[in-house]
This record gives sequence, structure tokens and C-alpha cells, in this order.
Amino acid sequence: MHTDLVAALDIGGTKIAGALVDGRGRILVRAQRPTPAREDGETVMRAVAAVLGELTASPLWEGVSAVGIGSAGPVDASAGTVSPVNVPGWRDYPLVARVREAAGGLPVELIGDGVAITAAEHWQGAARGHDNALCMVVSTGVGGGLVLDGTLHAGPTGNAGHIGHISVDLDGDPCPCGSRGCVERIASGPNIARRALEDGWRPGPDGDTSAVAVAAAARAGDPVAVASFERAARALAAGIAATATLVEIDIAVIGGGVGKAGEILLAPLRKALTDYATLSFVRRLAVAPAQMGTDAGLVGAAAAVLARRPDAAAAGV
Amino acid sequence: MHTDLVAALDIGGTKIAGALVDGRGRILVRAQRPTPAREDGETVMRAVAAVLGELTASPLWEGVSAVGIGSAGPVDASAGTVSPVNVPGWRDYPLVARVREAAGGLPVELIGDGVAITAAEHWQGAARGHDNALCMVVSTGVGGGLVLDGTLHAGPTGNAGHIGHISVDLDGDPCPCGSRGCVERIASGPNIARRALEDGWRPGPDGDTSAVAVAAAARAGDPVAVASFERAARALAAGIAATATLVEIDIAVIGGGVGKAGEILLAPLRKALTDYATLSFVRRLAVAPAQMGTDAGLVGAAAAVLARRPDAAAAGV
Repeated sequence: MHTDLVAALDIGGTKIAGALVDGRGRILVRAQRPTPAREDGETVMRAVAAVLGELTASPLWEGVSAVGIGSAGPVDASAGTVSPVNVPGWRDYPLVARVREAAGGLPVELIGDGVAITAAEHWQGAARGHDNALCMVVSTGVGGGLVLDGTLHAGPTGNAGHIGHISVDLDGDPCPCGSRGCVERIASGPNIARRALEDGWRPGPDGDTSAVAVAAAARAGDPVAVASFERAARALAAGIAATATLVEIDIAVIGGGVGKAGEILLAPLRKALTDYATLSFVRRLAVAPAQMGTDAGLVGAAAAVLARRPDAAAAGV
Repeated sequence: MHTDLVAALDIGGTKIAGALVDGRGRILVRAQRPTPAREDGETVMRAVAAVLGELTASPLWEGVSAVGIGSAGPVDASAGTVSPVNVPGWRDYPLVARVREAAGGLPVELIGDGVAITAAEHWQGAARGHDNALCMVVSTGVGGGLVLDGTLHAGPTGNAGHIGHISVDLDGDPCPCGSRGCVERIASGPNIARRALEDGWRPGPDGDTSAVAVAAAARAGDPVAVASFERAARALAAGIAATATLVEIDIAVIGGGVGKAGEILLAPLRKALTDYATLSFVRRLAVAPAQMGTDAGLVGAAAAVLARRPDAAAAGV
């Protein structure tokens, strides 16, 4: 008997994952569909409903008390809507109402995907035991979330911690978001690769021009590849230092595909932090790699909804 | 009979102000001494004790339940110590213990001065009724504080909201704090004046080269003076947008001497915000001038300590 059983949905531009998750963060049932991201909104919703349908068909479903959703953003938790950049068929789409309906009227909690991953790292990963933390995903984009005073800080609309779109270079290159010099515009995987190519790096015989290939070149000592990661590290450090200076975090957890580059990114990042995190109360800031794997979004969506229940302490979120 | 009476101290590099403040934010008794900022730490403490002595001599003192301190930073609320940049005799100075002793053992609450001003604006000023706010002081330095989820967010050490020292120009000019391109390095009064002079602005017959004089020149149409305020406005906008993107504030309140420049600063600031605050959940961000006067530090220190008491709702902090 699982007394704290919840359903979780992790909705991204590539796949829609679902699970039943117990109060200890264990995934008991899974379902998944590709996201028909280029289709109309109702077609995308049918894929969500199919995932939910597999979950509701489980004999465990009768023990489920709520549904947590972590979605690609922007989301609007106060309105219950989502407008994921990579799913154009959903603009102010009433996802919470539609999921509630498909889940037999259960309570539904919506947060952004960066916030969900943060909930997972705080519950069971690298931010465990930290009352004030920034967790980041450095990948095709740069996302994040915050734990403040021991609690997930989702913000009124569920988007807080959006570190990829703070400007650390106010005169810098235009960002697709409309601003300039955003952390993501400098530190995301595609931008690391673009900068390396612009500065003369050339891929190997396999033609791979991704940030993974740039990271391999950097490990082999290619100075242009090293410099591109160092530049990304400086932007991340400025953003992390800004966050610590504003809200007093004591750890920054770095995950995502670019985060997996390891010390090629983390060593210059720690060094750059000494340049930007200078005030007494931010100097002890730690940087750690993420510990949660590909289930972070599901576990985090479950954590967020468990935290809203009377037995919230169990989730430690 | 004042049931919610507290004592408040506002400790800066120029003066040490004290007051007895009631649960409605009214100042009933005042005391003040110049800060002997260049003297040794015990001499500075004697000035604090003299202010407290005047307060404890009041017949109202017997109703006082706690002491709130807003101090120039950095402070360390967790250790109970202060290290104000402008008071070199105090480094990790145990101010909380010393004030508790001088106040007959009453509970003492320490916060940074930017946090104190934020508490005041949230209680009775421009941020009243806003659950998520950034309040700033733009003056010789740039400071600030945050209200999140309806509550003052001081951070574990009492320094949160330190927007003056987030970098918005990662390759920018070195800042005395050790970082580069900080908001304060671009937007403080002395930096507005310095930039105007470097770019060819010249003072009038009175020789006044302060930011107040630059503001007057800007109002008279001097293009170099206008440009210096516009540059400050861009840095403030990038910092405010970063804060909104990280923690979802819905209002930024601007006070301090430079803030008093009015539309010369606020008009380009609102315009620049449309450039940097681009994501859906930060686009509705309002900018408003501060409403609290020179008593903001005292009222805010009182608010912070009132908020820790069982009747916290009364202070609305």
C-alpha cells in the first residue's frame, strides 16, 4: 500500500513522459509518447491523454492523490496554462484543466521544467540538505530553478530560476528571447559550438560540430575549444554569482548535456566564480554536478505535488 | 499603551539613528549620533550605546519587546556580526550580542540596510500590497532588498537583494568589490557623474560635479548628461530584469538620491526594461519611485522585528 502515491508528467518538446511515483521518489509505473510538437494543440493533448490513459489503467491508480506536471516553458501556474517555445500549437493552452479532466478531477500542480529538476535535485540529488540552492540545466538551452529557505521557489507563475535569460552582457549579442547577452546566448551547447567554429575550430572526420565534439577537442587540448568552454563558464559564473548575490544560495548544481562535459566546464567555472562572487556572503558558494538522471523531471514533478500535501515533510522539498 | 512597541536602530557610515516604533510604524521617540566611522570599533559601539541609552531612558521603554537593527553591510545575521565597508573599525563585529547586552537582554534582529528599506516600503510604501517586490536605493552605492511570497527575504546572512553587485557587463570595468561591470559600477551617483565628465560634460559656475548637477543638466537638455543617465538606466534595467527573471517580482521600487532624479532616470529605465525583461512572466513588471523618506531604515528595522513576533500579520511584512 503506497499512501503517498502521485502521478507525474514531464512534458518536453521531444517526449511526454508519465509515471506513478511513491512518497520515496520511486517510479512504479511508466508511460511515454513522442511529442507531436509540430501538430495542432489538440493533437499534442491526445498524446498527453494517451500517457495518462496508461497510468490510469494501472491497478495502482486508485491510490493516486494528485498529479504534478513539469512542462517546458514558459508556463503560467497561476492561470494553469502553458506556452512551450518548442510546441507552437500550445499557446496559453489550459493544460491544468485538461489534465485534471483526464485524471478524474484530481488536484493538479504545474511547474516549469527547470523548477521540476530543481525539486528532484533537492529531494534526492546534489542539492539535498541545502536550504538555498540554484539547480541548472545547461543543454540546448539553459534553464534552472531555486530552493530558498528550504522550500522550492517556483514563483507565482512557476517560472522562477530562469537563469538562462538573465543578461550578463548588457551590450552583448541579441538573444532569441528579445534581450541581449543572456547566459543562454553565451553558454548553451549550440552557442559553445557556434563560437568554436567562428573562431576557427574544425570538427574531426565524423563532421560532428556539436558541443560534445567541442568538449572532446578541448579535452585533447585544442585551444579554441578550450576558450569556447571558458567563455561559457564565465557567463555561467556571472549568472550564478548574480543569483547568489540576490538570494543567497550556497550551492549551484549543474546538469544537462553541456554540464556532462565535466571539468572542461566546471574547472573554469569555479575559477570564474572567484572573479564574480566576491562579497563575503557569496564566497563560499559550492558548484556540484547534477546527480539525478533522465527521470529528474518526473521525480521533481512528483516532489512538487507531494510538497503541497499535509505530509510535505516526507518529500523534503 | 502600545502593545507592539519595538526599538529600531539604523546604522550607517554617517549617522546612527534610533527610535521606538509602534505596531503601526509610528516613531514615538528618537535619538541620533554621528557615526565615528574612522575610530576604533569600541568608540563606534559607544555611539550606538549612547543612542540606546536615550531610548532606554524613555518611560515607554518598559513596553519595548525587541530590537531591530538595519546596518550598512555586509552583515552576517547568522553570526550576529557586521563588517560595514565604511566603518573599518567593525570587522565581524558582534553587534547583536553588544546591543542585546545594552538593551537588557531583549531579542535582537539584524538585517542589512537595503533589506530594512525594503521592509519599510513593503509595510507602508510603494511596495505595499505586492507579494513579490524588489526595492532599491540608488545613491552613492546601489543597494536593495526582496519581498518574496509576501514575506521579506533577508537570506541566511541578511544580505539578500544586493543588486548593486550583480554583474550586468561581464567584461566591464573593475568594481571596487572585486568583480566587473556591477550595476553599482555603472548606475551609482558617483559613476553617473564620472561618466558625464569623461564624456565632456562640464559643471556650471557653482562647480557642482555631483549626479544631482548632472541630472539638472540632463533636464536642461544636455545630451552628454542625458546619455549618462540613460546608461545608468540600462544597467539598472538589466539588473531589475535579471531579478524578475530569477524570482518573479512584479514591482521594482527605486529610492535614494539618484532615484530622486525622477523621470530623467525613470523614463529611460522603463524603456530599457522593455529591452531586457522579455519573457512572458516578467513583461508586466512595474517601476515606481520610493515613498518612504529618511525614516525608512528605522521603520524597516522595526518591521523586520515585528514580523518575527506572533502578531506578525500586523506589520504586513
